[in-house]
Amino acid sequence: MRLAVIPGDGIGPEVIAEALKVLGEVIPTAEITRYDLGAARWHATGELLPESVLGELRDHDAILLGAVGDPSVPSGILERGLLLRLRFELDHHVNLRPARLYPGVKSPIADPGEIDMIVVREGTEGLYAGNGGLLRKDTPHEIATEVSVNTSFGVERVVRDAFTRAAARPRKHLTLVHKTNVLTHAGSLWSRVVEEVSLQHPDVTVAYQHVDATTIHMVTDPGRFDVIVTDNLFGDILTDLAAAVTGGIGLAASGNLDITRRNPSMFEPVHGSAPDIAGQGIADPTAAVLSVALLLDHLGEHESARRIEASVAFDLATRDHNSPGGTFAIGDRLAALVSS
Amino acid sequence: MRLAVIPGDGIGPEVIAEALKVLGEVIPTAEITRYDLGAARWHATGELLPESVLGELRDHDAILLGAVGDPSVPSGILERGLLLRLRFELDHHVNLRPARLYPGVKSPIADPGEIDMIVVREGTEGLYAGNGGLLRKDTPHEIATEVSVNTSFGVERVVRDAFTRAAARPRKHLTLVHKTNVLTHAGSLWSRVVEEVSLQHPDVTVAYQHVDATTIHMVTDPGRFDVIVTDNLFGDILTDLAAAVTGGIGLAASGNLDITRRNPSMFEPVHGSAPDIAGQGIADPTAAVLSVALLLDHLGEHESARRIEASVAFDLATRDHNSPGGTFAIGDRLAALVSS
Ligand SMILES: CC(C)[C@H](C(=O)O)[C@@H](O)C(=O)O
Ligand SMILES: CC(C)[C@H](C(=O)O)[C@@H](O)C(=O)O
Repeated sequence: MRLAVIPGDGIGPEVIAEALKVLGEVIPTAEITRYDLGAARWHATGELLPESVLGELRDHDAILLGAVGDPSVPSGILERGLLLRLRFELDHHVNLRPARLYPGVKSPIADPGEIDMIVVREGTEGLYAGNGGLLRKDTPHEIATEVSVNTSFGVERVVRDAFTRAAARPRKHLTLVHKTNVLTHAGSLWSRVVEEVSLQHPDVTVAYQHVDATTIHMVTDPGRFDVIVTDNLFGDILTDLAAAVTGGIGLAASGNLDITRRNPSMFEPVHGSAPDIAGQGIADPTAAVLSVALLLDHLGEHESARRIEASVAFDLATRDHNSPGGTFAIGDRLAALVSS
Repeated sequence: MRLAVIPGDGIGPEVIAEALKVLGEVIPTAEITRYDLGAARWHATGELLPESVLGELRDHDAILLGAVGDPSVPSGILERGLLLRLRFELDHHVNLRPARLYPGVKSPIADPGEIDMIVVREGTEGLYAGNGGLLRKDTPHEIATEVSVNTSFGVERVVRDAFTRAAARPRKHLTLVHKTNVLTHAGSLWSRVVEEVSLQHPDVTVAYQHVDATTIHMVTDPGRFDVIVTDNLFGDILTDLAAAVTGGIGLAASGNLDITRRNPSMFEPVHGSAPDIAGQGIADPTAAVLSVALLLDHLGEHESARRIEASVAFDLATRDHNSPGGTFAIGDRLAALVSS
């Protein structure tokens, strides 16, 4: 197993160190190559993602990423030039984001019930396509546009993936989230594709919900969701909310998948670089550790993935949530649990 | 005071009847003209918003709208052809949506604290502009686009309004919500406008937050928000979430304002037509009643507006939330309170 690791910025390196500690316990033979992409490299060399590095990354089985982003870098530079560039160059069309309320974890919701959903967020289109521009900048007549691009090809492969996942889950329920009543063109495409693909999955029940109403249900009845399929931006927004109601982004893992396996998939915590708490050893590495579990699942190492998840579940059920211990302590506990 | 009333679809007519009952107590001389726009008229005549009706509407001091939308009408027809058409034709650029947790009201959040925010949502641009289309429909090469259009003119007038509102509030705090790290063009325009206008309001503290992170804070620390200014789509999403955490969309009012007063402003509950509960007399008319208070404020009838708000606050503090009474009972209580 050849893994590329991009620790990145802020708390990225801290949580990745613990994730690798845990990985080392289950796959001691994994070969790790580190790449110093991120804010520091950009400051030092102006480089974001050199072609040569992109080439090397392609030559791995998967990528593990910590977080990118730093207040010293103008907004968008690292996101568009590094993180999103990786997602787009490596065709990470399925952005997989499970949200589960683990026993013992406190939700900010008073009466959360059981929450166990997967958000399948489209990863290579929509408003993230980077189409748009500024006209007459810095004049009273300035116009800024952003274009959401949705293709039949791009929507269909993600919707198919979501249906396959739904069909494999006990509840077999899929919710399309969009804003079809306003974004009528993109909404029409998404709705039609879901309708067509649903014909091949008569066992999966299908619901539709507007994105605004979905945020309401996320806080009043999150247990209703099983698999959600949605576009890139709605998925971005809803997965932060889903992470919040399941105990916070310190626990939320994600996989950026090329399900054709032509390119290595990339796994990362949903949280960002959190520069405000970086270097203090207080970031929760659990999201990074769970991202390793998703990575192992993707590479067929299901048993190791289950062991990591079970260890996380045990730790969350038994930890003192008021003083969970620092980054290292949590990492040490998880490493010990995994190897026991 | 000449008011145009569009009861609309679903629970719209039910909640509007109660809102008018309350209005009648404070402004008995208000002249009401009803317009039967909505699903039924569309089915009967194919009409959504005839030019002649639009002309008549312009001739009023304000518009009160219940809700539009019905499952029998394809998604988008009534929204784009009636509701959004009204907002755009009447230049309702400031979509004002207060979210306040009234004493006695239960939030789905375990520990909500005090919540009292105003969302100033841009109302005439962004992804709501209706720019976009379908290419190669129903082929494997279909492309659907949606264009977010943001102008210096459009953003600035809304940001100015938000700063003015923030400056008039005790906390004097304004949060710009956007996704500047991905939507770099629109994000750049919004950020620059906020920065420029902030120079004229040194008393207002300014924060920026990504829309995804904002949903987290809405459920973990909603009390941090005072005035939020944001674009049309982000505002749509966040105000449903803000309504949810402050007790539900049964209580959330909104104003679609043309702050130049060239056109009548329009007031409506944030909730939709809720066809599933229509006709049962169980819809809470409070959001519609609070929309009347916003309407009266806009028309300078501040004392009447305060009386309605105080009546709602009293009713919410003293009602049995497990059995609040039906639509009529709540309307009757509020009408009695207002006139007492
Ligand atoms: C950092 C940012 C570009 C990214 C996104 O918007 O996708 C993040 O919010 C995420 O959800 O992974
Ligand atoms: C019905 C719909 C078009 C509308 C919107 O998206 O603005 C509604 O959700 C709202 O918030 O008023």
